[in-house]
Amino acid sequence: MIRVGVMGAAGYLGGELLRLLIGHPGTEVAHAVSTRFPGRRVDSVHPNLRAQTDLVFSAPDDLDACDMLLMATPHKATMKLLPEMRGRAKTVIDLSGDFRNPDPAVYERYYGVPHTAPELLGAFVPGVPELFRAELAEADLISVPGCMASAAILALHPLTGLIGPDVQIDARTGSSGSGALAGDANLHAERSGALRVFAPVRHRHEAEVARLTGLNARMTATGVEAVRGVQVVCHATGSADEKAVRRAYRKAYADEPFVRIVAHRTGTHRLPDPKLLSGSNYCDVGFAVDGDRITAIAALDNLVKGGAGAAVQCLNIRTGQPETLGLGFPGLHPV
Amino acid sequence: MIRVGVMGAAGYLGGELLRLLIGHPGTEVAHAVSTRFPGRRVDSVHPNLRAQTDLVFSAPDDLDACDMLLMATPHKATMKLLPEMRGRAKTVIDLSGDFRNPDPAVYERYYGVPHTAPELLGAFVPGVPELFRAELAEADLISVPGCMASAAILALHPLTGLIGPDVQIDARTGSSGSGALAGDANLHAERSGALRVFAPVRHRHEAEVARLTGLNARMTATGVEAVRGVQVVCHATGSADEKAVRRAYRKAYADEPFVRIVAHRTGTHRLPDPKLLSGSNYCDVGFAVDGDRITAIAALDNLVKGGAGAAVQCLNIRTGQPETLGLGFPGLHPV
Amino acid sequence: MIRVGVMGAAGYLGGELLRLLIGHPGTEVAHAVSTRFPGRRVDSVHPNLRAQTDLVFSAPDDLDACDMLLMATPHKATMKLLPEMRGRAKTVIDLSGDFRNPDPAVYERYYGVPHTAPELLGAFVPGVPELFRAELAEADLISVPGCMASAAILALHPLTGLIGPDVQIDARTGSSGSGALAGDANLHAERSGALRVFAPVRHRHEAEVARLTGLNARMTATGVEAVRGVQVVCHATGSADEKAVRRAYRKAYADEPFVRIVAHRTGTHRLPDPKLLSGSNYCDVGFAVDGDRITAIAALDNLVKGGAGAAVQCLNIRTGQPETLGLGFPGLHPV
Amino acid sequence: MIRVGVMGAAGYLGGELLRLLIGHPGTEVAHAVSTRFPGRRVDSVHPNLRAQTDLVFSAPDDLDACDMLLMATPHKATMKLLPEMRGRAKTVIDLSGDFRNPDPAVYERYYGVPHTAPELLGAFVPGVPELFRAELAEADLISVPGCMASAAILALHPLTGLIGPDVQIDARTGSSGSGALAGDANLHAERSGALRVFAPVRHRHEAEVARLTGLNARMTATGVEAVRGVQVVCHATGSADEKAVRRAYRKAYADEPFVRIVAHRTGTHRLPDPKLLSGSNYCDVGFAVDGDRITAIAALDNLVKGGAGAAVQCLNIRTGQPETLGLGFPGLHPV
Repeated sequence: MIRVGVMGAAGYLGGELLRLLIGHPGTEVAHAVSTRFPGRRVDSVHPNLRAQTDLVFSAPDDLDACDMLLMATPHKATMKLLPEMRGRAKTVIDLSGDFRNPDPAVYERYYGVPHTAPELLGAFVPGVPELFRAELAEADLISVPGCMASAAILALHPLTGLIGPDVQIDARTGSSGSGALAGDANLHAERSGALRVFAPVRHRHEAEVARLTGLNARMTATGVEAVRGVQVVCHATGSADEKAVRRAYRKAYADEPFVRIVAHRTGTHRLPDPKLLSGSNYCDVGFAVDGDRITAIAALDNLVKGGAGAAVQCLNIRTGQPETLGLGFPGLHPV
Repeated sequence: MIRVGVMGAAGYLGGELLRLLIGHPGTEVAHAVSTRFPGRRVDSVHPNLRAQTDLVFSAPDDLDACDMLLMATPHKATMKLLPEMRGRAKTVIDLSGDFRNPDPAVYERYYGVPHTAPELLGAFVPGVPELFRAELAEADLISVPGCMASAAILALHPLTGLIGPDVQIDARTGSSGSGALAGDANLHAERSGALRVFAPVRHRHEAEVARLTGLNARMTATGVEAVRGVQVVCHATGSADEKAVRRAYRKAYADEPFVRIVAHRTGTHRLPDPKLLSGSNYCDVGFAVDGDRITAIAALDNLVKGGAGAAVQCLNIRTGQPETLGLGFPGLHPV
Repeated sequence: MIRVGVMGAAGYLGGELLRLLIGHPGTEVAHAVSTRFPGRRVDSVHPNLRAQTDLVFSAPDDLDACDMLLMATPHKATMKLLPEMRGRAKTVIDLSGDFRNPDPAVYERYYGVPHTAPELLGAFVPGVPELFRAELAEADLISVPGCMASAAILALHPLTGLIGPDVQIDARTGSSGSGALAGDANLHAERSGALRVFAPVRHRHEAEVARLTGLNARMTATGVEAVRGVQVVCHATGSADEKAVRRAYRKAYADEPFVRIVAHRTGTHRLPDPKLLSGSNYCDVGFAVDGDRITAIAALDNLVKGGAGAAVQCLNIRTGQPETLGLGFPGLHPV
Repeated sequence: MIRVGVMGAAGYLGGELLRLLIGHPGTEVAHAVSTRFPGRRVDSVHPNLRAQTDLVFSAPDDLDACDMLLMATPHKATMKLLPEMRGRAKTVIDLSGDFRNPDPAVYERYYGVPHTAPELLGAFVPGVPELFRAELAEADLISVPGCMASAAILALHPLTGLIGPDVQIDARTGSSGSGALAGDANLHAERSGALRVFAPVRHRHEAEVARLTGLNARMTATGVEAVRGVQVVCHATGSADEKAVRRAYRKAYADEPFVRIVAHRTGTHRLPDPKLLSGSNYCDVGFAVDGDRITAIAALDNLVKGGAGAAVQCLNIRTGQPETLGLGFPGLHPV
C-alpha cells in the first residue's frame, strides 16, 4: 500500500486526486492537507466523496513522511512550498505550473515573477507517460503539464516530423480550470454560456508545448460553458497526406492505454469532444487534412488526464503498479 | 422628460433599470448611484450598454433631487437608506425586500432582524399594476414584490375564490436572482447544472403571496441552471373545472398588456416557460385541472417583470405615460 | 460469469446497461440487441465505450439463451416482446413502464391502451432492493420503477407512518429521460435552458409511488436543462418533528449501500442534488420540517439508480454476488 | 409602409425576421410563407410572438406581389425557388447560402452540387452595409453572408492592408445555426455541453471571407453549447503594432451604427463575446497583438446581425429609412 499525501486537497484538482486515490486498490491517503479547512471532513468540501471516506483535512504542519507527495497547490505558492516539503516523501508529483519549464527565464516571461527555486527546475521529469515512461519509472520529481498543454502535446507529438515549425493552437477550457475560489469572472451569471477569449495571445501553456514538441507553438485560449473539459484545435502546415498522418498517430499510440484515435468520416462523435470524457483518464486525438493544412485535435478532462489522472498514472508507473490501476472509469454518454 | 435616479445601479436589477430607462422615450437617467464604482463608466459594469450611454456612476451623496427615485439596493440596507433618500424625489419605487410587508413582525420572522423604519411600512403600495393600478397612479411610495412572489400572485390572483385556502408553491429561479456579488455558492462550477433546493420550506416570498392573495401560501424554492427566469408551479384544491378556471383567468387578464394566458393542450410551448421571456416584461400564466386538484403555473424574467420592468411599468402609470412605454421587447425564440 | 442479454441496447438506458455490465467483473454481455443497428459496432452508438469493447449489435432473432435478460425497450412495445423473449433466460429484468403496475386498469388509465399481457402483471417483483431485497433474491421477473418513481419511493418510504395520506410530488428531470430518438421537443435549441412543465398533473409515475408507499401520490413533472438527473420534492403534512423524521430515515437506510441521507443545516450541498450523482448509483435523500409540513427530497441519476444501475443491483442480488459489484463509481465534483 | 413577404417563415431565421419586422415602425408583414405549416398561427411556431401578431402562415402559392421579399429558405432549395419568386417583389434579400459566391465553381466545390441559376450569381450585392452601403441603396438582389462569414469579414476587413495573405479562422457557433428541424446530431442530450468540431477544415463560409477580404481564408468550425451566437478568432501575421491595428479599426468603424470595438486591457468583458449580444444587431470586434502575430476577434448573434438583423438593416438602407430602425434592442446582461 502506497501512503500518499495530498497538498491543496480542498481545491478541484485536490478533490479529483482524493476521488482517484480513495478508489485505487494500491494507495492509501495518509494526509489531505488544506490550509483553509484543517479539521473539516473532506466530504463537506467534496460532496461526491460522501460515504467513500471519513477523512479529515490536516494542516500543512501535520504532514508526516509518506511514500509519495502530490501537490495541487497554486502556482507561485508551490515554488516556495515544494523545497521544504520534498523531504517528507521520496517522490513528489507537482500539478502546479511552477516546475514545468526548466528555464527560469521562460518562467518569468509567462508568470511575471522570478522563480524562487531555479536550482530545482532541471530535476523534474514531465508527467507525460506517452513521452517519458522510462524516465518516470525512476523519477523523484515529476511535474504534470498544464491541461491545455497536455492535450496539445498529445495531439502534436506524433506529427513533429510532418509539420511545422509553426503551429497555432486554439484551446478551449471549462470553468473548473480557474479553480474553486469565487471571483467576479467565474460567477455563474457571468460565465454561463460565455465564449470568453481570456488569452487571445501568449497563453502560458504554449511554452510547455514548444518545449516538449520542438514546435513554434502559439496558443490562444477561450473559456467555454462546460465545467470540465479541454479541447485543442491545432493548425499547422505540412506535406503529409491523410494516410501518413493516420499512420503516424497509430504508430505513436497503438499501445497507449489512455490515448484513443478518434477520426471518423461521419457521425456526430467523429472527432474528439471533452463532453464524452468527464471523469475519464482518456485523451482522444484526431485530425483532418486539407491540402497542405493539417488540423490536429485533442480532448481530455482537465481535472483527470489534464491533472489528477495523469498524476495517478505517473504514480502507478513510478511505484511499479499496473499503469491503468484506479483509472478505469470510461466516461458517460449522454451527459 | 421624467428625471430618474437609480440607486444600486451596479447590480443586476440596477443594470436592467438602466437598460430600460435609457431606451425609454419618456425618461432620462439623472443619476446612476453605486457605492462600489463611483466615477466608473456604467458600460464598464453593464457591457450591454456600450454605445447606449456615456453615463458614469455617481456616489450616493451626489444624488440631486429628481422626479423619481428607483432603489435596487440590498434588503436590510434599504430600510436604512430609504428614509434619508426619499426627500430627494417625489416618488420612490423600492425593489428590495424591505417594504413589501406592512407588518414589522412578518418582516422580522422572514428576515431575522427587526425593521428599522416600521412607521413607513403601511405607506407603500405594492408594485403590481394588475391588482393596484388605480392606487399606483397616485402612490408616492411603491414596493415591487419579490420575483417569485410576483409570479405566484399573478398565477393565483384569478383563482382566489375557486381554490384554497392552502396552496403549495414550487418556485424555481435562475442564478441572477442571487445578485452580482461573487460567493462560493454561485461559482459557475458549483451552480452550473445544479438543482439546488435552497429553501425547502418557508421561502420569504410566501408572506407576500399570502398577503396579496389571502391564501395560506407555502413556498419551496430551487435554484436552476438558467441565469434569468422564474417559474412557479402552484398546487391547490378546489371544485372548479377547467372551463371555470379558464374563464377566471380570461376575466382577470383579458385587458392586461403584460399577462398572457398560455394553457394549450399540445405543443412544446403549451405552458409558461421563462426561457421564452428573457428581456421581456411578460408574465405568462397557465393551468391544469385534474379532478379537485388545480395546478397554476406562471413564468417571468426575474429581472424584468420580476423587478426592473415592473418598476418601469409602475413609473409609467404614476407619471401618466402609456403603460407599455419602453417595455416593448417581446423576448426571443430560440434562445 | 453471468451471461447477460440486453434488448434495446442502442438507447440511452441500453448504453448505461452496457457500460455497467462491461465494467462488471461478474458478468459477460452475450448479446446487445438493437432493431435499428444490427451489425454495427456498439461503440459507434455509445462512443464512451470506445476501447472498452468490440461488441457488435445483434438483431432480436439472434438472441440465444442466456442467464439473464435485461429489457430496455420502449413501453407499449415491451409488453408484446417480453412474453416471447422470456423463454430465452431464466430471469428477466424489465426497465420499461409496462410491468410496473399489477392492475391492468391502472396501466390503461396512465398509458391510454389496454395491456396485452395482463396475466403476467402479478408476477413481477419491483426492482427496489431497499424494499424488496428478499423477494428479489428469488425473482424471475423483475420490473424496475420509473426514474421519478424510484426517487419518490425512496424519499417517502421511511415516512409512510408519519405523513399522509396526501403527498404532492414535484419532479424534475433531465433530457435523457425522453430517450435517444430525435423529435421537435428535444431539439437542443428548444430544450436548452427550458423549464418545461410537461405533466402539470397526473404524471404516470404517480401510480407506482402510490402503490409502493400506500400514499395518495400526485405527481407534476418538469423537464430541466440537465441531460441526466432526477430530483423530487415531496410535500406532505404530518405531526413528526425534525428529529423523528431524521430517525425514520436513519432506521430505514443505515445499512443501505446506495442511499445516503443528505440533510444539513448549511452549505451549498446541504440537500440532494442530481448534479453530484451523474454516473453513480446513489440515491440521496433529505428533508425539511416546518410546523406540520414535511418536505422530502431525493435525487438520483435517472439512467443509473433510476434505471440501469438499479437493474444491475437487482442482478447482483438475484445471482448472489455482492450487491455493490460493478457499481462503485461515486460521481464527480464539480461537473 | 413597406409590404414585406417572408419565405421560410417557420424556421429560426424566419422567426427572427418576423420578430424584427413586426416590431418595425416602417414595415408590414404581408405574407409569412411556410410549406410545412400553411394555415397555422405564426405564434404557434414562434411562441415569443404571442400577443404581437395574429398572422397566419401562407402557402407559397398565396404569395402576392409585395415591395420586398426576404428569403430564409434552405440552401439548394433557394436557388430553385428564387428565380420564380423574384417577380413578386421589386427587391429580394436572400439569407441562404445559394447566392453568396459569384463563381458557380466555388459553389459546387463547397456545396457539392452544380448551381442551377448561375446566370443570377453576378447580380447579387453582399448584404454587408459596412462594405457595400452605397450599392445596397440601389440593389434589387441582395445576399446576406453566412453568420460566421459576416463575423470574420467584419473582424478582418479593417486589417486587409496590414496582414496576410493567410488567415486561419476559428469559428464557434450555437445550435440554432443548424436550424429548426430535429436530427440525431442536434438532440439536446447529444448537443448539450458539446464542443463539436463539425468542420475541422474547409468550412463553407471561408469562400465568402476570401472573396470579400481578398485574404487566403481558412475556416475551422466548432459547435458550442449556446443556442445563439457566433464568435470568430482569426489568426494572421503582419507587422502592424497594437496602435496601428486599433487605428485601423477606428477608421473603419467610427461611424458604423452596429459595429463596436471591444478591446480592453482588463475586465471580464474585455473582448467580444456573443453572450452579450443575444437579440441585438451588434457585431463586436476586438484584437490582440503579440510580435508579428495579430489576432482579430468578432462576435454577433447568428440569427440577427448574422442573418435577420443584417437583412433588415439592408432593407432600411434600400428603402431609404433610418438604418437603425427596428434594430434598437441592445442585448442583455447577464443572460
